[in-house]
Amino acid sequence: MAPSLSKLTGRTDVKIALAASAALSAWLIRNSIKSRTPKSTKPGRLSPEEQIQYMIKERGQKSPRAQVDARFLAELNALWKIMMPGFWTKESGFMILIAISLISRSMCDLWLIQQTTLVEGSIITMNHGEFRRLLIQFFTAMPLISLVNNVLKWSIGEMKLRIRTNLSLYLYQEYMKGFTYYKVSNLDNRISNADQLLTTDIDKFCDTIVDLYSNISKPLLDIGIYLYRLTVNLGASTPGIMMVYLLLSGVLLTYLRRPTARMTVQEQKLEGEFRYVNSRLITNSEEIAFYQGNHREQLTLLASFYKLTRHLRKFLNFRVCMGFIDNIIAKYIAITVGFYAVSRPFFVTDHNLLTTGTENDRFKHYYTYGRMLVKMAEGIGRIVLSGRELSRLAGLTARVTQLRAVLRDLNRGNYSRTMVAHHERHNGQPNQPMLMAPGAGRIIYQDKIIKFDKVPLVTPNGDILINELSFEVRSGINVLVCGPNGCGKSSLFRQLGELWPIFGGTLTKPPKGKLFYVPQRPYMTLGTLRDQVIYPQTRDVMIRRGRTDEQLNKFLELVQLSYLTTREGGWDAVEDWMDVLSGGEKQRIAMARLFYHEPQFAILDECTSAVSVDVEGHMYQYCREMGISLFTVSHRKSLWKHHDHYLQMDGRGGYTFGEINNETQEFGS
Amino acid sequence: MAPSLSKLTGRTDVKIALAASAALSAWLIRNSIKSRTPKSTKPGRLSPEEQIQYMIKERGQKSPRAQVDARFLAELNALWKIMMPGFWTKESGFMILIAISLISRSMCDLWLIQQTTLVEGSIITMNHGEFRRLLIQFFTAMPLISLVNNVLKWSIGEMKLRIRTNLSLYLYQEYMKGFTYYKVSNLDNRISNADQLLTTDIDKFCDTIVDLYSNISKPLLDIGIYLYRLTVNLGASTPGIMMVYLLLSGVLLTYLRRPTARMTVQEQKLEGEFRYVNSRLITNSEEIAFYQGNHREQLTLLASFYKLTRHLRKFLNFRVCMGFIDNIIAKYIAITVGFYAVSRPFFVTDHNLLTTGTENDRFKHYYTYGRMLVKMAEGIGRIVLSGRELSRLAGLTARVTQLRAVLRDLNRGNYSRTMVAHHERHNGQPNQPMLMAPGAGRIIYQDKIIKFDKVPLVTPNGDILINELSFEVRSGINVLVCGPNGCGKSSLFRQLGELWPIFGGTLTKPPKGKLFYVPQRPYMTLGTLRDQVIYPQTRDVMIRRGRTDEQLNKFLELVQLSYLTTREGGWDAVEDWMDVLSGGEKQRIAMARLFYHEPQFAILDECTSAVSVDVEGHMYQYCREMGISLFTVSHRKSLWKHHDHYLQMDGRGGYTFGEINNETQEFGS
Repeated sequence: MAPSLSKLTGRTDVKIALAASAALSAWLIRNSIKSRTPKSTKPGRLSPEEQIQYMIKERGQKSPRAQVDARFLAELNALWKIMMPGFWTKESGFMILIAISLISRSMCDLWLIQQTTLVEGSIITMNHGEFRRLLIQFFTAMPLISLVNNVLKWSIGEMKLRIRTNLSLYLYQEYMKGFTYYKVSNLDNRISNADQLLTTDIDKFCDTIVDLYSNISKPLLDIGIYLYRLTVNLGASTPGIMMVYLLLSGVLLTYLRRPTARMTVQEQKLEGEFRYVNSRLITNSEEIAFYQGNHREQLTLLASFYKLTRHLRKFLNFRVCMGFIDNIIAKYIAITVGFYAVSRPFFVTDHNLLTTGTENDRFKHYYTYGRMLVKMAEGIGRIVLSGRELSRLAGLTARVTQLRAVLRDLNRGNYSRTMVAHHERHNGQPNQPMLMAPGAGRIIYQDKIIKFDKVPLVTPNGDILINELSFEVRSGINVLVCGPNGCGKSSLFRQLGELWPIFGGTLTKPPKGKLFYVPQRPYMTLGTLRDQVIYPQTRDVMIRRGRTDEQLNKFLELVQLSYLTTREGGWDAVEDWMDVLSGGEKQRIAMARLFYHEPQFAILDECTSAVSVDVEGHMYQYCREMGISLFTVSHRKSLWKHHDHYLQMDGRGGYTFGEINNETQEFGS
Repeated sequence: MAPSLSKLTGRTDVKIALAASAALSAWLIRNSIKSRTPKSTKPGRLSPEEQIQYMIKERGQKSPRAQVDARFLAELNALWKIMMPGFWTKESGFMILIAISLISRSMCDLWLIQQTTLVEGSIITMNHGEFRRLLIQFFTAMPLISLVNNVLKWSIGEMKLRIRTNLSLYLYQEYMKGFTYYKVSNLDNRISNADQLLTTDIDKFCDTIVDLYSNISKPLLDIGIYLYRLTVNLGASTPGIMMVYLLLSGVLLTYLRRPTARMTVQEQKLEGEFRYVNSRLITNSEEIAFYQGNHREQLTLLASFYKLTRHLRKFLNFRVCMGFIDNIIAKYIAITVGFYAVSRPFFVTDHNLLTTGTENDRFKHYYTYGRMLVKMAEGIGRIVLSGRELSRLAGLTARVTQLRAVLRDLNRGNYSRTMVAHHERHNGQPNQPMLMAPGAGRIIYQDKIIKFDKVPLVTPNGDILINELSFEVRSGINVLVCGPNGCGKSSLFRQLGELWPIFGGTLTKPPKGKLFYVPQRPYMTLGTLRDQVIYPQTRDVMIRRGRTDEQLNKFLELVQLSYLTTREGGWDAVEDWMDVLSGGEKQRIAMARLFYHEPQFAILDECTSAVSVDVEGHMYQYCREMGISLFTVSHRKSLWKHHDHYLQMDGRGGYTFGEINNETQEFGS
């Protein structure tokens, strides 16, 4: 019945499928021709992608080259040493465990093939006793096989976690040394997404490397085992034909699939553009809304969307055509070749192993070796595919190495940054050529004095704000700093805080710890309420320095925040403080922090905008009492009376430093 | 030889594997015990996660509930109508094409099973002629099967693209209507990531829905076909046993796997936290560097990292244990049950189909029906798994629906936002209760006048900046607006530009098109150089209004940018203008834009900070000539002379509106 059945289905199915396919391929062809001719859904009107032209400069990090070459291996080796601290470590123990599990798993596969064939044989020969015995044997072996599988899974997972931990700890050590984390994102522009590198990319890198280890060694092992078994039992020709065909077709398909990489890159680029156009709209939504630019922006959005979908359609058509070839070469011809290869020994009349046995023996041989051949083919397929994974690993290795190199560079004090072009600054007037280099200035540490001696005010990318700045402030003198936006107030403080390099002259200042900064945006760290006041000290340090919670209470009282400990539930309360505290509360916490640290000098950068005048007054008075000298940036007139000197910058390169007395004209609002 | 071979491998392999597994399971157990006891790598020192406690308020969008219920179906139906505009459309044509391809594919599978078995039979019976004939038949059918596979792939891909296009166009229509894009991100806080929703999530939604369509219908079809075939030929018991076992084990495994969902959510949460802690460091790097908080932040980073890895380890252990059970139930017992089920007819002595044939017939029956059983089992497995995909679709549907609902709501003028708590504003002083509601004010459109009549200055979340603002400005009068940061300058302009709702009073102003805004951050659109000057008009509109490139040249000359057309290569040059132009150039382009549009009133929001004094002067003079009245926000003293009135806000709720004359005290820098 089976053959007739097969013929019947064969015929009707094939007929239906044939008719359908003919119709569909006609449609497909028409469609692909249509997509090549200029598209015009509505005649006379241009589609957005023809109406709008735009160019988006590639932002974000240019991905470093990802080639599998000697340099990749050297980089991988360097990272490997970080991830595997030595041979007698748990990490190498896990590597060995993975290897043992892989070998055990191959053995299990082999056993399963043979056992399955035996069970099937017993069914076909209707040998009930044998069937029962084999099934019980099969059943009892299962927990062991399952254990092997899961030990493999566990050791791979644990290995990933361990090397990720090692690598992360190493990189964080470098990243958090000194101001490196600041320099990476503010001074250097080689890496634009350190956070992504440190979280997602390291994770991916560790995953890929461990997966590659098992995805390459297991198929190689399998191919070896099955090749040996097949050659010994069936002669070299059966596995040989298969090997040759699979390798040749693998090479051919890899060759044919080459445009895929380019098209994938293009797809990602267009998707990135589309996302960028969307997020750009949100970032600039206020400006666009004021301009009422919605129609115009919609056109841009649609242009980007259509560019993307047009490419996706092209890519889909390519993949479908490729899939057609792929299906035939890698699946159906491979099956045919497999049939041919495995059938050869059966049709060679003098094959001593096969022609002597019964039909049942032949059946068992056929299935045992057939399945081995399939496993071998799978192994070869996986090896061919692992090339792609290898270049993925190369890309990830290059990225992690770049991060490591940049961190090391920054820790040595080098940074690289594109300097501004000097021909078009300051309203097109050409500027004098740069004679200064970062780090050319000198810093002298001395207590109770801040003195700028011919220090130029230069941004890290070479923008000169003030050619030479000279002034001197001794402890006990408060200075009010003023000037328009962008005049260099923040730059001055960044140089004082040693965040920015000094391009020339001599800066005399107390050591870092004795200079405190209260920023415009008050920063609250993650942690307890106490952590906010003693930041950046930890509780251990606080206790070691003999400070008590009572003292902290006093500081909170000074800034009129004593209600906070009650409201939030004590000093050990844990909250998301950035969110829980109001703007004024945050600013007052920052002041309490200043009182706790009692530095020689403090910079108050518009840090009291949300604080009432009387609280402000108390703060200045307390600072005077404690001998904290202040640099204040503020537009508030009410603050002039707390200061002795002023430093005014005009935003065009000029500045005035003078005493505040009754004749000084106060400005501000 | 085969059985002895099998026994040999069986023994050695099993022994090695057994020994290894015993050792490893001992390790595993020890390890899992260890991880339960408090971890202490270095005794006496607390690990970061014990030292640092923190809480991170969940930011970003709370994902709406994702349950497969009636509401989900209703939402899906509503979206479906958008994606499939009607029955006689290409979209439904593709749905039918997918269905036809799926049926054809099932037919092909059936044919392949039968053909494969026949080929194998011919090998085992060493029937060379039959083998050759079958192989040729197999070979010739391949292109057709491959075509069916790829028509399916193509129609699925094309369908995804089409519904994505339909849905995207619909949502963009809503999103770009009026100021909706601005309101979504600035006034409403239900959706925090509209860009991601509009790009990635819609893509995922369309993918999931089409995949689900084929991933549910194909297995159902397969199960039906094979169930029918098997029942007809082998009786109900064989497929029945299999069905019952698979369904029961599917339910059991789904039950056992329940913690996975919770643990995955936890993993994502911890990973999000880790990423957030990293990006937080970068966002606040300057403040942290000033505070020298690197040690403290490193502890927080490590605490977050260890929290994550601890969870990952726990999750891994759970997945390994689960995998062990899963392997046994879903794989090995299923195989055993399958063997048993398929063997039953062979051991029932009076089965008319099987016992009458030869061994070769039995062999063919065994493999044909065995393979059908495997296909059926796969189908059931896929159906069981599709439950997960269905709840994924529910989640995506809820998100897309939420976006749609919010957009519709905003287009109707409703917005929802958490208002600030009124007890802790303005330095802890309780405020009067809110008596105003958004939209309670009135706007009267009238040319050449701007008049605030008792309009309160209120931010959209209810922060009152000024209780009642009243002043009147007629065409021809320039007003200088000043005051400290946060005093309400921008809020005033947002109310003037109708971006923000008016909470009370009457605002008289010219219609939107006659009021122009030059923002602080000059916005450059994507497009040509011409597009920058005529923004937000498109070139078509410009031509329709009779403006020429010569006129544009004149505007560029006025702002001293005439070199730009030469430098960039003409009006049609396409560049990333945000990046290509310097700060001053962007500000001057924005001025040229103002000249092009010639509005009645213009708001200049600190928009000349990077422009030299003489260029600034020319601009003010030209605006006077053209009858454009200006509201200027600036700290520059040099600008006072261009203005007739000033509006000063003190940031504490007070304001002064007055004439500028010789006695007015000018301030600024």
